[in-house]
Amino acid sequence: MSREVPAVDAHAQAAARARQQQLTKPPGSLGRLEDLACWFAARMGEPVPAMPRCEIFVFAADHGVATRGVSAFPQSVTAQMVSNFAHGGAAINVLASLEDCRIEVVDVGVASEEPTPPGVRNERVRAGTRDLAAGPAMTAEELTAALGVGERCAREAVNRGAQLLIAGEMGIANSTAAACLICAFTGATPDTVVGRGTGVDDAGLARKREVVQMALARVGPETSQAARRTLSELGGLEIAAMAGFYIESARSSVPVVLDGYISTAAALAAVAIEPGVLGWMLASHRSAEHGHGIALAKLGLEPLLNLGLRLGEGTGAALALPIVRAALALHRKMATFGEAGVSGALDEAT
Amino acid sequence: MSREVPAVDAHAQAAARARQQQLTKPPGSLGRLEDLACWFAARMGEPVPAMPRCEIFVFAADHGVATRGVSAFPQSVTAQMVSNFAHGGAAINVLASLEDCRIEVVDVGVASEEPTPPGVRNERVRAGTRDLAAGPAMTAEELTAALGVGERCAREAVNRGAQLLIAGEMGIANSTAAACLICAFTGATPDTVVGRGTGVDDAGLARKREVVQMALARVGPETSQAARRTLSELGGLEIAAMAGFYIESARSSVPVVLDGYISTAAALAAVAIEPGVLGWMLASHRSAEHGHGIALAKLGLEPLLNLGLRLGEGTGAALALPIVRAALALHRKMATFGEAGVSGALDEAT
Repeated sequence: MSREVPAVDAHAQAAARARQQQLTKPPGSLGRLEDLACWFAARMGEPVPAMPRCEIFVFAADHGVATRGVSAFPQSVTAQMVSNFAHGGAAINVLASLEDCRIEVVDVGVASEEPTPPGVRNERVRAGTRDLAAGPAMTAEELTAALGVGERCAREAVNRGAQLLIAGEMGIANSTAAACLICAFTGATPDTVVGRGTGVDDAGLARKREVVQMALARVGPETSQAARRTLSELGGLEIAAMAGFYIESARSSVPVVLDGYISTAAALAAVAIEPGVLGWMLASHRSAEHGHGIALAKLGLEPLLNLGLRLGEGTGAALALPIVRAALALHRKMATFGEAGVSGALDEAT
Repeated sequence: MSREVPAVDAHAQAAARARQQQLTKPPGSLGRLEDLACWFAARMGEPVPAMPRCEIFVFAADHGVATRGVSAFPQSVTAQMVSNFAHGGAAINVLASLEDCRIEVVDVGVASEEPTPPGVRNERVRAGTRDLAAGPAMTAEELTAALGVGERCAREAVNRGAQLLIAGEMGIANSTAAACLICAFTGATPDTVVGRGTGVDDAGLARKREVVQMALARVGPETSQAARRTLSELGGLEIAAMAGFYIESARSSVPVVLDGYISTAAALAAVAIEPGVLGWMLASHRSAEHGHGIALAKLGLEPLLNLGLRLGEGTGAALALPIVRAALALHRKMATFGEAGVSGALDEAT
């Protein structure tokens, strides 16, 4: 955990920017796609990068706080959805298949009597966190173990040749844990940060706000020195695994595409632990979940898509991949003004 | 031109909506992707539609008003870019190739001494429009001819089996003509509608506003009864071709994906001529060009993407295709709650 996060390649970025000015289009007319091509140039260390090979991990775990009625779904749905992932029936399976991405489902702490189903990686740290409203969600040792799961997954993917990584998640009640973390790391209040998650009703929303308030009052204000403590007090096992995944990916010079609310809470924790990680993060979409924008703003990230998604699993991140592919293909394959014999703007042309 | 625009299939749409409620995700959590799947179900007349086969047409023409210095680029760039399209070097070529779409480039009225290059369809109505600030851009007969080019292209594509159509454009100074049309069809003023197009400087922007003001003063307030007259007075040959293309596509029950500023101006004209066409239009992206939002709002369309694009050619529309593909794949391939043995929301499950 002591390796430094590398800087991005400013030379490759500048060369990419110069190339964009020479492509047969008015300068800047491809908007965010131009920035995206330069962003990948800087991170892949290549002025004209090919589409990076991408892998997706879905980290699943349960949350003790689920017993407080903060979710629209019963806790048993976590294990049921893990089984659905294993059978290829969930949204993220469909998108991973469309994008031809390897996908791995990792049980970091599902609260189930059943063994981990075939096709799911068993990395259970414990059978769900403790109730974060009453006490620490996990111990320091459990946090280290969960961070380590994510780190190991990222390291193995990089060793297989992955050049871009996505972490998704599944965990009933994890938007409560994420709300706690977003409040703690941004200083925003539960009123603005807590939303309906998968669709809790008015009474559930009120309970959820109250629970987040209790947890924050219990823990006190976060400082970046205490990032690990905050994560162990208020986080989830899958959220900690995602944070470890993001940190290890950045240390390996491999960028990550963030997903939605839960993913961005994990990103806040990762950046609080290791600030250099931020430079390797791309925001995919703006979630419909209340408060996601607050977390993105704290990180200074502007997402590519805004499609009203609030599913998680990594789905928003996977949906950004074709936009990345288009940006890199345009960057690589468009003709330059010189190659095409096209005049530049009037002030240069006349 | 007298065939009616068919209604969409409300039964297929309702069946698609019911299926969305059964897929293993919280209801509504796929946001716009759920609406998109239902939108295509209604237009393809199939509750679980496959990805439609899509073709792209790029209509190119010149504008007499270009001599007034309203563009950042010289008029010769239209012909140069047509040649670039023919050689596969433009942005839309790259995106068409990524999406495996047939692309056809149609010269509706390029002002060039040179013959139409190989690989470009010659449908030149005349060598560019007349100066719309001084008099009608085209005669009624020229308008009919240009509309006819678009209609013919759409009809041929449908006969080849196209199930989704995109029209892009190229024409130096065509954002001036589009601004005139958007003002005329929405009632908005040039101050809010006229933007920098491909990147005109401050002096050019002022000239462009003045030119649009002159043209509007010359023509007087538009009424939908006079939609054809408005289009002939203020339009462009490629814009008229796009309007005809949209009308014929809708009459053939084939939806279209709109592109940006110019495309949406053509859409306003098409809808003014034939209101039923609107039901077959999908908005792809919100352009960086000032006033595009005004045109979209008039049509009541909410675009899928907002990436700061201002290139045209059909690029924004092509970028929406992977989002459509993802929406339809999720709709078709995700498991239902029943298939996966996943519990629904608490109120149903308990």
